[in-house]
Amino acid sequence: MLRDVPYRPFASQNCSIAGALSVLGERWTLLVMREVLLGHRHFSEIRRRTGAAANILSDRLQTLVDHGLLERRGSEYVATPKGLDVNPVLVALMQWGDRHISKKPPRIARRRSDGKRVRAALVTEDGELVAPGDVETVLTRARAS
Amino acid sequence: MLRDVPYRPFASQNCSIAGALSVLGERWTLLVMREVLLGHRHFSEIRRRTGAAANILSDRLQTLVDHGLLERRGSEYVATPKGLDVNPVLVALMQWGDRHISKKPPRIARRRSDGKRVRAALVTEDGELVAPGDVETVLTRARAS
Repeated sequence: MLRDVPYRPFASQNCSIAGALSVLGERWTLLVMREVLLGHRHFSEIRRRTGAAANILSDRLQTLVDHGLLERRGSEYVATPKGLDVNPVLVALMQWGDRHISKKPPRIARRRSDGKRVRAALVTEDGELVAPGDVETVLTRARAS
Repeated sequence: MLRDVPYRPFASQNCSIAGALSVLGERWTLLVMREVLLGHRHFSEIRRRTGAAANILSDRLQTLVDHGLLERRGSEYVATPKGLDVNPVLVALMQWGDRHISKKPPRIARRRSDGKRVRAALVTEDGELVAPGDVETVLTRARAS
């Protein structure tokens, strides 16, 4: 059963951004996902590294388990494929922060398998890079079937 | 002068994700950026389309102006380059919502200049796609100079 999420009103908007934020947009949630995806899976470790209060952290972890982003395995929280898919959101935020907030980026993202630097980008389906100002979103048509 | 942002504690973490969330993580802020980047620039239009209360919306818009993501031009709010750079975050959220929340994606992102479908992706500096599970972030070394 899903818990009552204060961000819930967003879920009723017909928008995948609002839908994503109805799960990910609560304060602390993306920092919790950051920690788990960094490999810090224990409650106490996540708490220490985020600075979240214990009751808030419990709530956020439970919400992430309820929505299928994390699985609890003994005392650890492990990301599911749905949770791993949050990585592009985190890298996009990190990159924005690196460019516009941090004086010295404290971390870099890289590919685990070969160490190449990784960044979030907008690409076409055939892999061409797209400039951030050259994107529009359009309503899909109602489908016939 | 910057206004008091309740998410501010995140700004003191040495992390660009937390830094980005100290500006973008307040409830409604990313939906406001969504609207401006969709081309809806008037207060009343943004209010109607997000459903945010007027006082909250005023606060969020002012925060975005104070942090240099939006500029006010007469009665319109216009994204600066810093604001346009939020697009990869929004597309990454939209994509996560499309994949994991929405039954039928209500919108698609496409390149304005040629209409090609656009998605958020993790890429290496030479443009290779990176699987979400194949990313790690590592601390940068303290620099000598």
